[in-house]
Amino acid sequence: MLEAAEVVFAAKGVSASTEDVARAAGVGVGTVFRHFPTKEALLEALYRGRLQRMAEAARATADAEDPGEAFFSLLADAVEHSATKIAVADALTKAGVDVHRASAEESRELTEALTALLLRAQRVGAVRPDLALPDLMAVLVGASRAAEHATSAESRSRVVGLILGGLRASRSG
Amino acid sequence: MLEAAEVVFAAKGVSASTEDVARAAGVGVGTVFRHFPTKEALLEALYRGRLQRMAEAARATADAEDPGEAFFSLLADAVEHSATKIAVADALTKAGVDVHRASAEESRELTEALTALLLRAQRVGAVRPDLALPDLMAVLVGASRAAEHATSAESRSRVVGLILGGLRASRSG
Repeated sequence: MLEAAEVVFAAKGVSASTEDVARAAGVGVGTVFRHFPTKEALLEALYRGRLQRMAEAARATADAEDPGEAFFSLLADAVEHSATKIAVADALTKAGVDVHRASAEESRELTEALTALLLRAQRVGAVRPDLALPDLMAVLVGASRAAEHATSAESRSRVVGLILGGLRASRSG
Repeated sequence: MLEAAEVVFAAKGVSASTEDVARAAGVGVGTVFRHFPTKEALLEALYRGRLQRMAEAARATADAEDPGEAFFSLLADAVEHSATKIAVADALTKAGVDVHRASAEESRELTEALTALLLRAQRVGAVRPDLALPDLMAVLVGASRAAEHATSAESRSRVVGLILGGLRASRSG
């Protein structure tokens, strides 16, 4: 149901209704309300669910043959979902929810999983050895904002590729 | 006076007072009020002045020996000033001013000067030949947001260098 909700909110924005979510999930409105009595509860679950899924995706790459490829594909996915994530966080903040506090556990797990993946990608020489996690998070924010600002899908993909490309270890150095 | 105002707003935020600006500019408050009867008038002049100065700086590099260096140093300067620029634009929007409309002429001049500089930097092989101006603007937004999000001055400088570095032409290709 959360994945259906995420698709709906990505397509319609955070003003999408519980009815839209129920329809997309193929369940009754009552079922959605039973799980999420308020819109805020649904948005919070959505936000925490996104962090959880990212952490799981990062952990799932532990045995990946190519940790560099796994790293860059996870980042591209994060940028792809960032607009909805930011919109959901903004809506929650407006509704008076302390998003960082509400998702502290998920954030911690994501940070842990991402740090491990970053180290693996650095160990195989795919990512600059001097890149620390706070730098990576700032670059991710930058790539997401640049993606939002791009004027076409082609430009978005070029711009994101160019920014994330800066994380790669240079072959000559 | 505008440059003094920019320094004051960068240091104190857009809530800085006309008195602060007068003190920094070494003039009386009356003089500031005579030029800018309202806070909005001051902020608007500040915003347009920033675009104008960037356009002038870009034009001034027309004879630069190293257009690549001129290009990257202008971008670094733009990112450096972006937080104040965004804050001023946000304050104007909140005050009901259509910032884009108010600065249309300055924007046009900046776009023209920046396009010329980009072409010169591409001609000497310093910047990726496939970079178009809209992509560059999106990357600049991304670099500015990443800079805002960085957790220290060192991280900010690494992150901005890394993102703008993605604009460089690769030596191998």
